[in-house]
Amino acid sequence: MSSWTQAQMASIHKMLNPRSVAVVGATPRMQYGGKFLKRVLNYKDRLNVYPVNPKYDEILGEKSYPSIADLPEAVDVATIIVPYHAVLETLKECKAKGVGSAIVISAGFSERGEDDRRELQERVGAYARESGVRISGPNCLGLANVRDNVWLTSSSRVDGGTPGPVGLVCQSGASLFGPFLARALDMGLGMSYVVSTGNEADLEFADFARYLLDDEGTKVIAGFIEGFKNAEKFIEVAQLAQERGKPIVLIKIGRSDLGSRAASSHTAALTGSDKLYDAVCRQYGVIRVQNYDELLETAQLLARAKPTIARGVAVVSHSGGVSSLTADMIGQAGLQLPELTDRAKDGINAILKGFGWASNPADVTGKANSDDFPAIIRHLIDEPEVGTLVVASAGGDPHADQLLELRDHTEKNVVYLWTGSRNQTTGLPKLKAAGLPVFYNPDSLAKGLRHLLDYHDFRRKRAAHPAQPDTPATAAQLKLVDELQARGRITLSETDSKSLIAAWGVAVSRDERASSAQEAAQAAARTGFPVVMKIDSADIPHKTEAGGVRLGLRDATEVAAAFDEIMANARAYSPQARLDGVMVQEMVQGGVETIVGVTYDAQLGPTIMFGSGGVMVEVYQDVTLRRCPINLAEAHEMIAEVKGSKRLTGFRGSAPADIDALAQTLVDVSRMAVQLKGRLAELDINPLLVLPKGRGVKAVDALATFSQEEGAS
Amino acid sequence: MSSWTQAQMASIHKMLNPRSVAVVGATPRMQYGGKFLKRVLNYKDRLNVYPVNPKYDEILGEKSYPSIADLPEAVDVATIIVPYHAVLETLKECKAKGVGSAIVISAGFSERGEDDRRELQERVGAYARESGVRISGPNCLGLANVRDNVWLTSSSRVDGGTPGPVGLVCQSGASLFGPFLARALDMGLGMSYVVSTGNEADLEFADFARYLLDDEGTKVIAGFIEGFKNAEKFIEVAQLAQERGKPIVLIKIGRSDLGSRAASSHTAALTGSDKLYDAVCRQYGVIRVQNYDELLETAQLLARAKPTIARGVAVVSHSGGVSSLTADMIGQAGLQLPELTDRAKDGINAILKGFGWASNPADVTGKANSDDFPAIIRHLIDEPEVGTLVVASAGGDPHADQLLELRDHTEKNVVYLWTGSRNQTTGLPKLKAAGLPVFYNPDSLAKGLRHLLDYHDFRRKRAAHPAQPDTPATAAQLKLVDELQARGRITLSETDSKSLIAAWGVAVSRDERASSAQEAAQAAARTGFPVVMKIDSADIPHKTEAGGVRLGLRDATEVAAAFDEIMANARAYSPQARLDGVMVQEMVQGGVETIVGVTYDAQLGPTIMFGSGGVMVEVYQDVTLRRCPINLAEAHEMIAEVKGSKRLTGFRGSAPADIDALAQTLVDVSRMAVQLKGRLAELDINPLLVLPKGRGVKAVDALATFSQEEGAS
Repeated sequence: MSSWTQAQMASIHKMLNPRSVAVVGATPRMQYGGKFLKRVLNYKDRLNVYPVNPKYDEILGEKSYPSIADLPEAVDVATIIVPYHAVLETLKECKAKGVGSAIVISAGFSERGEDDRRELQERVGAYARESGVRISGPNCLGLANVRDNVWLTSSSRVDGGTPGPVGLVCQSGASLFGPFLARALDMGLGMSYVVSTGNEADLEFADFARYLLDDEGTKVIAGFIEGFKNAEKFIEVAQLAQERGKPIVLIKIGRSDLGSRAASSHTAALTGSDKLYDAVCRQYGVIRVQNYDELLETAQLLARAKPTIARGVAVVSHSGGVSSLTADMIGQAGLQLPELTDRAKDGINAILKGFGWASNPADVTGKANSDDFPAIIRHLIDEPEVGTLVVASAGGDPHADQLLELRDHTEKNVVYLWTGSRNQTTGLPKLKAAGLPVFYNPDSLAKGLRHLLDYHDFRRKRAAHPAQPDTPATAAQLKLVDELQARGRITLSETDSKSLIAAWGVAVSRDERASSAQEAAQAAARTGFPVVMKIDSADIPHKTEAGGVRLGLRDATEVAAAFDEIMANARAYSPQARLDGVMVQEMVQGGVETIVGVTYDAQLGPTIMFGSGGVMVEVYQDVTLRRCPINLAEAHEMIAEVKGSKRLTGFRGSAPADIDALAQTLVDVSRMAVQLKGRLAELDINPLLVLPKGRGVKAVDALATFSQEEGAS
Repeated sequence: MSSWTQAQMASIHKMLNPRSVAVVGATPRMQYGGKFLKRVLNYKDRLNVYPVNPKYDEILGEKSYPSIADLPEAVDVATIIVPYHAVLETLKECKAKGVGSAIVISAGFSERGEDDRRELQERVGAYARESGVRISGPNCLGLANVRDNVWLTSSSRVDGGTPGPVGLVCQSGASLFGPFLARALDMGLGMSYVVSTGNEADLEFADFARYLLDDEGTKVIAGFIEGFKNAEKFIEVAQLAQERGKPIVLIKIGRSDLGSRAASSHTAALTGSDKLYDAVCRQYGVIRVQNYDELLETAQLLARAKPTIARGVAVVSHSGGVSSLTADMIGQAGLQLPELTDRAKDGINAILKGFGWASNPADVTGKANSDDFPAIIRHLIDEPEVGTLVVASAGGDPHADQLLELRDHTEKNVVYLWTGSRNQTTGLPKLKAAGLPVFYNPDSLAKGLRHLLDYHDFRRKRAAHPAQPDTPATAAQLKLVDELQARGRITLSETDSKSLIAAWGVAVSRDERASSAQEAAQAAARTGFPVVMKIDSADIPHKTEAGGVRLGLRDATEVAAAFDEIMANARAYSPQARLDGVMVQEMVQGGVETIVGVTYDAQLGPTIMFGSGGVMVEVYQDVTLRRCPINLAEAHEMIAEVKGSKRLTGFRGSAPADIDALAQTLVDVSRMAVQLKGRLAELDINPLLVLPKGRGVKAVDALATFSQEEGAS
């Protein structure tokens, strides 16, 4: 599958690398149109610039054209800064002229929260796709090719940027041309392209990210997303990105209800369920961060870091206090500071001569700013378990030079924790200019390193365990679903739900349906005592509440009595319910209770949940999520993420449970979820008992619900 | 109790507000002694400065004195920058001369990790206390009176500070005169005094904090602690601080093993158990943060904020994206953004005229930088549920003036989230200079606000529920403990452990000891079936492992058989164990399992733990801690913090449990822990069953351990 066409990429290419630009709605006044034109006239040596406005003959000394049609050439990009109701017409003129792409700065669309504006935006988007004049916006603030220093924006807040390896795409223009660029400049972050996508009537984050994947100079894609227009497309680009080893670092708001309330008040995008987005980001290798400084620092680190294998971190500082604090944060982030070998210790001690500490972290006092420093850091970085050297200090230019020299002659990573003023005029500017990753606080450094190491781990794992391939359901499986759906019930009975999952390979507890007390007793004898009995009715999904469940029945007499009781309770509980009888079920013993569920997210499609079963799932919400399908490695990851899984590994002297069978069941259920997309709405297997190793799992209860609409699988 | 004397405070006062200073070890070379002297000579208009060094007649143009004895006056503070072995002698000269205090910059003491140096440091500390010449250090870098611009430091990294309300005390001098002061300068944080305490041979963090509590100009005490020398003293100053409403904001390292490893490698302080320190900080109103920027931003906020009662936050920005991100972080921090009233909405809409959003968060587009802004922010801050207005933007000087005007005419708080460059030359400098709290990232702002609101909440709660008063144990309680200790056993049997806690008012399950199968059957008949039987032996603490427990015995036959089995199992398990017989116990039903424990921390003394019982405590580590004693309100807080407590509140249709009785039991156990300090070493009540409301709790098993040494209570 691929959501992108060559023509679309060509259109984005023109937008980001234009040789000619029209400014439709240019004015001499310093509002959006005027500001845009004034800025773009700076690039006249590289760009043909055409103001378009029938009200003027000349604007800012340039000939103004009455319309797009009158331009002497079909420009690469038209910037549209006209009233909202004139945007569609302008696009049509662009199409007629053969214009390559358009940036729609004009606002007044879906962000107004009115139906007619939303519809107009949809028409604009549809026209862009249909005509091939692809657009960024509306309600955006433009974009820039930082490498060539071409800024196509009506924002007045920006004064250029540093060319480099990070591509930055933000839905919010005021955020891009506000904090993101301001801080990128502060920290000297090198950028390739920056794009604000606004309401995303046509092109969206994933489209620009797709373009940046092909751009050799872009090593990391950073983004700020309020809501995904098309989450599946985002996942597709994330998958491609991880295959190519270009990390995506993202702020995605919606962690709290307040954030999503704000986001939906201002864009039309859906923010979706945040926990699921968190899970999906981890699943597809997308690095999710919290704030703009963290986004930029992490992007910088990932863009500049070498692909080292050693996971250990060595810390060196001029201060014991700073080195302790840094080590503390590194430990809290789950990273390791390997103890130094005797060779390194002796080497460093020979330099320190009794001052400071030759350990990890190392406190080298004033030697951090001396001619001895290169020898110290060489000892540290040569340690076999060390992959990253962290220098926590605030040295001057000679100190910076020593580090850059080391950075240029090692396969390992050198990262700086700057502990001085952010305005220091020696040392820091040199480090920034040379692209050495700099952090300003120990916890953000530790988090960044953790992201870096996790990212490379993730890629190794994915390389070893490729994604579960899509396979179609078998004819037998589809026939069963057809039969079950043909009965016209949305909610299936336990028996039918179990037959459904059994068709996808999930082991279910043995049971027989009985229509009389006598049949029940006979069934129980065949099953073997003790047995469980449960009312069988699709109309009674909550069987316990209805008095429809009896456990641990030991003989035929108990079974016969239970049959009558259960039927009577069910009739009293729900006189209208159709009762199919009572199920006589083996009483599975010695398993660990877990829960497996499937739901379909409006944006992300089929998702699978796994968690501790029983009371615990409600008290501790000890569950984890993935988008389907998952492979066996991901299933094992899910199991490991759930705290209650300790009970599966031979807890308190009990036998280890059959984790392999559990993992295979999760894979099977996730495959089923994909194959029944559009037909299944929900599935709960609760409990799924995990038996001792070698004996598999057993679904003791299940509840499947079909979609309301007739869906195509 | 009070750990401080007037003389000690007077000595600190002289150190921080000197009129005369001697520099012992001054030299013309720009090493520590030279740098110190050079700096302090700048204050000759305010300070009498005396270099002391017998090797020179004159240093930097000043007469050098051969010794302290030769000085023309008894100086307020002597700065000691001599080799470590000469420090004690110098202090003796100070005492002889009548010097008021000393700053010992000299290093070479406990930080070297050698026994003789540690002992020397102890002698220096003891001499300081004994002589009254109180010292800061050794191995510190000095201190400063920022208000009067007097910097007594040999650090070359600092260039002054902004006078203001925050007192800053760091053990690590290189950290204080490094990142802490550099960033304080960057953000324009106003400071009263800054002190580095080094190895704390004599005066420690708590002593300087105690001094700052009495200093009117200090509103907040900020600190960086690697390890507490005397944690009880820290708690005493924290209690005083919360009574007076002066917040303490702290970085305390040791969150990870790596941090404490680093800290212990470089100071002699113990870092203690971090989870406990976290709990204790919360218990005594100390605000614990992660990094220096967060420390300074939070201190600034708390120093400048008004004591507003309304907990709501209103957010306004020029950008929808920024306002969404800010709202998201505020929501994630657990704060509220109340919906606007119609009055505010209508008022703001009348200004926005169709652009932006009159909501909370509000996106007011370009109106954030216009003459209309004052009316907008007035609408927002007048909202009844709003206590804090957050402006997320990067406006110029006129915009800053508008906010300062509002700040000066409201009882509510105005806080800025600066979204521009940290180097912006308009707006930001004005806000900083006026002391308006500024944050630079939405998550640190949200965390800061949360700390502010929690702090005021905490103080209200403590005012309503004063600390549990200390009371002595009763004669009967002490007699029982004497008897139990007289038996010479460290670990008590279940029976004895239960009699111990019962003496402090904890309800225990009924049981009888039986020495024969017949006695057991009779005891069971008295108790009422079903019963539990357990081996009774102080030598077998793990009864289940020994096959020494039987549950749910239904009649006399089962009981008699169980007696023989249990005794046989115990004999087989531990042939040497002394068996006191078998306990026949009521089988308590229908309670929720919890666990209560007491331990004694080497630094913090008695601590109480409460948690979910059963398997859960191991799987989920669902426990919470407090230092003893606790009051009833704190006991209820502990219960609320444990997730499994959901099971106590009528979970899944079960009856609500007796939470009041549980809380009282926690208070009783915490009182017992205090009263038995030095005698008791550990106590586990596991499980403590919490019965339905009105029926109390019941300790079904308990295990008490006495201290090894004979202790005084």
